[in-house]
Amino acid sequence: MTAAQHISDDELAEIYTFAVQLGKDAGTILMKFAQARWSDNGTGEQLFTEKDSAVDIVTKADEDVETFIKNAIEKKYPTHKFLGEETYSKGASRAYLIGPAPTWCVDPLDGTVNYTHLFPMFCVSIGFVLNGEAVIGVIYAPFTSQLFSACKGKGAWLNETQRLPLVKNQPLPPHAPQGCVLSVEWGKDRKDAQDGNLHRKVDSFLTMAAEPGGRGGKGGMVHGVRSLGSATLDLAYVAMGAFDIWWEGGCWEWDVAAGIAIVQEAGGLVTTANPPEDTQNAPIEDVRLGSRLYLAIRPAGPLPATGESARQSQERVVREVWRRVRHLDYSRPGA
Amino acid sequence: MTAAQHISDDELAEIYTFAVQLGKDAGTILMKFAQARWSDNGTGEQLFTEKDSAVDIVTKADEDVETFIKNAIEKKYPTHKFLGEETYSKGASRAYLIGPAPTWCVDPLDGTVNYTHLFPMFCVSIGFVLNGEAVIGVIYAPFTSQLFSACKGKGAWLNETQRLPLVKNQPLPPHAPQGCVLSVEWGKDRKDAQDGNLHRKVDSFLTMAAEPGGRGGKGGMVHGVRSLGSATLDLAYVAMGAFDIWWEGGCWEWDVAAGIAIVQEAGGLVTTANPPEDTQNAPIEDVRLGSRLYLAIRPAGPLPATGESARQSQERVVREVWRRVRHLDYSRPGA
Repeated sequence: MTAAQHISDDELAEIYTFAVQLGKDAGTILMKFAQARWSDNGTGEQLFTEKDSAVDIVTKADEDVETFIKNAIEKKYPTHKFLGEETYSKGASRAYLIGPAPTWCVDPLDGTVNYTHLFPMFCVSIGFVLNGEAVIGVIYAPFTSQLFSACKGKGAWLNETQRLPLVKNQPLPPHAPQGCVLSVEWGKDRKDAQDGNLHRKVDSFLTMAAEPGGRGGKGGMVHGVRSLGSATLDLAYVAMGAFDIWWEGGCWEWDVAAGIAIVQEAGGLVTTANPPEDTQNAPIEDVRLGSRLYLAIRPAGPLPATGESARQSQERVVREVWRRVRHLDYSRPGA
Repeated sequence: MTAAQHISDDELAEIYTFAVQLGKDAGTILMKFAQARWSDNGTGEQLFTEKDSAVDIVTKADEDVETFIKNAIEKKYPTHKFLGEETYSKGASRAYLIGPAPTWCVDPLDGTVNYTHLFPMFCVSIGFVLNGEAVIGVIYAPFTSQLFSACKGKGAWLNETQRLPLVKNQPLPPHAPQGCVLSVEWGKDRKDAQDGNLHRKVDSFLTMAAEPGGRGGKGGMVHGVRSLGSATLDLAYVAMGAFDIWWEGGCWEWDVAAGIAIVQEAGGLVTTANPPEDTQNAPIEDVRLGSRLYLAIRPAGPLPATGESARQSQERVVREVWRRVRHLDYSRPGA
């Protein structure tokens, strides 16, 4: 166990500036690879041969961008640790490796399926973790030119100019999940077993969506159900205030480190997706970064009608979600 | 019954130019109303009082933009008919009103829930229909600055410069729906009855998503399931090639007129969501604009491995979807 690490405010600010530029540069490379596949790309560049499949191209983009980010960090901050999706997928283990040391937790390409199909909801995700906590997050979605960023103590931002959430102090709906936009993902686990994650997820989606009297009285009647295919962008839109609730299992720390930093700095709450036994009274703890189970509630203001504080209303929504969802079965070693 | 109408190529080109500019202007108004709600909007404008709720603001934006579009069309083309979402919702009937005369079919704000929550997937949708066929479509999503447009015979375009689909002649996956991105919407009908549309939809989503051996052998194992909350943008992304399949019921002609024009001009296929009795041999007919039941397949190229033409592969995918989905129960008078 290494001792807790200290980084000065000035140094953190410098790391943040570096991370934002890194995110922009990395996203630009992703977009260049994407555009090279377009019918009439104006660049005249031939990055690939006719024989390269979409999957080959995506793999190359993913690897090239991770190498680009890793090299840039190693050059600037040789003592920092680096964890990337590609690092893991080539290694033998999926053990949780983040300790107190300054650690970059990076997904060079989140929303891989979207990128393969050229659906704009893909992005680069760069998180900086100190003492186990994500303190800087940079998410850049180059196809829609949306940059989300945050540094602990310095606010969360859209395109560096608009503070997140977009609407300040907006109360959560008094009868949540009614009135809430729920963001969820179908994921890759498609086993058709009643006790598999696919059915557990869909059962939960249905309960959140159904009319108030339905589903044994648990119908949540959310305002809308959204699935973007990118955990990272789901979190970005929670920070923005566009998604009230994100409930998901199965993703990894590199998918969420940047997003959690941005949501928390914007004033949102992130805890576990799996309901405790006593959903109404169990303490609501901050999420563990490597838990693979996430429930995020957007930033909020107090609810004047009831005198509820922002935090109280977020906790109320957490419990209303927990009442309606099933346990998901994703485990990991070492977290 | 009015006789078939004729409009010259030059006149159609002029109408197209007018429609594109109208879409841009209308989208800009939508965005202005959205930004007026932001915490620190830089415009210094106070479009609303503190007392206005998000719903009041959205209703005002919707109505103002429809009026703006309607007035512009009446001034420029006083003989053309106009049908807008707001026109319908204030009228007594939802009868299908589109005949052979030149008719503008407009949704001033598609993705209303997204707009209310400031999630970027909202847009203006302007369709121009002649002899019952959508021949011009303009979709503008101002938050992501994406403009989709098409005019019969002149191609489909992203931001007026990039031809759609982004990748030309891309074959559909040989084992579709495997390898396909499926776009669907949960909709507003949330009745918790086994024979209601919510359960019919979710059953169908599950069959499309489940592993190949699952769901009685029908598991479709699609590459991803997406829900954006905007029928109009779903169609735009089908035209782009990003979504392979869009399956939906319950929307109206103003939600889809522009999108269908763009998908068809890009080379996509749009037919009915509800499977016929003989899914494998029934003729595949072009969708009726007011049918409220839509199945769209993206533009494609021939599949060299089997010698299948683009149209043949699209029809194959239609039948594979029909094999896996349930009938939806949306009717309408007069269509």
